[in-house]
Amino acid sequence: MCSSCCERKKHRQEAEYQDLLKRLNRIEGQVRGVKKMLEEDRYCVDILTQVSAINSALNSFNKVLLAEHIKSCVVDDIRAGKEEAVDELCATLQKLMK
Amino acid sequence: MCSSCCERKKHRQEAEYQDLLKRLNRIEGQVRGVKKMLEEDRYCVDILTQVSAINSALNSFNKVLLAEHIKSCVVDDIRAGKEEAVDELCATLQKLMK
Amino acid sequence: MCSSCCERKKHRQEAEYQDLLKRLNRIEGQVRGVKKMLEEDRYCVDILTQVSAINSALNSFNKVLLAEHIKSCVVDDIRAGKEEAVDELCATLQKLMK
Amino acid sequence: MCSSCCERKKHRQEAEYQDLLKRLNRIEGQVRGVKKMLEEDRYCVDILTQVSAINSALNSFNKVLLAEHIKSCVVDDIRAGKEEAVDELCATLQKLMK
Repeated sequence: MCSSCCERKKHRQEAEYQDLLKRLNRIEGQVRGVKKMLEEDRYCVDILTQVSAINSALNSFNKVLLAEHIKSCVVDDIRAGKEEAVDELCATLQKLMK
Repeated sequence: MCSSCCERKKHRQEAEYQDLLKRLNRIEGQVRGVKKMLEEDRYCVDILTQVSAINSALNSFNKVLLAEHIKSCVVDDIRAGKEEAVDELCATLQKLMK
Repeated sequence: MCSSCCERKKHRQEAEYQDLLKRLNRIEGQVRGVKKMLEEDRYCVDILTQVSAINSALNSFNKVLLAEHIKSCVVDDIRAGKEEAVDELCATLQKLMK
Repeated sequence: MCSSCCERKKHRQEAEYQDLLKRLNRIEGQVRGVKKMLEEDRYCVDILTQVSAINSALNSFNKVLLAEHIKSCVVDDIRAGKEEAVDELCATLQKLMK
């Protein structure tokens, strides 16, 4: 499944793909919702709260994607002796934990 | 400008409104970009990095909106003797600092 | 109470002071606890979890201190017409929301 | 080196151990510094800034420890066919990315 990782591609299983896509569609809807709030002169605190909710949703998306990445790409690469996968993972985590 | 705060409305100045809207349009484009990456079977690490960038953009949006909220709504309310504005600000910050 | 703010001093009420000091003593104990875990060759995951707990405790400390700062220093300064208090608050929040 | 992981122990190399310990000693000193600031009635904003710096230092500590954990424990476990190491890593990351 992850031989394609090296070409920076990854074919995801249908269930995983649909779950990720559904999350992004919901997030896109939330962003459009905030635009509408802005157009309707909505109160700052309500917008701040809604933007925080989008951040949480994006964070959840990244947690799911990261777990699937580790369980497939990283594990396969380590078993195949590709040491650079570990460095890449560590570099990615440094960015996500900022 | 902020008498309307109490009705949970806030009319923003044109420059502020346009800046916030431009930020949201860019963020909406970034979310659509991630959906496209997913459809194109893009590598997990590239998607994780892009989602992190959206999180940063939303965070910047909230910082700008919060500063404008404090400088207009909160200051006006405090001057008008509306103590509840302070409690509301503190409650909002607790949520944003989670 | 906050006339002293301008000299970058703030006398805190006894209950507030004791609460903040108790939190810091507990945090100092937690840091020493992690040093001990390190000396005892404890497993990485256990140490990571414990350090996360210290970060949460520091975050809670900052939330309490920030709320008290706003309710006393900032409100007093705004009422006294010191506009720079608002800019300082906004600058502080930008740093805390990074 | 990591057979001891299963017993929830991990013997670290001297250089790694000394680096981690030095970081914790510095952090302990920073916490004591904040206690002193509190005792000296220091201004809220100065304390908030200093506590933020401790949070960053703890975050850096965790990044270093996590990278070393992955490069030794996790990689060794995956090579030894211990699948549970991957689940544990994912669970740990979920907590760190909250």
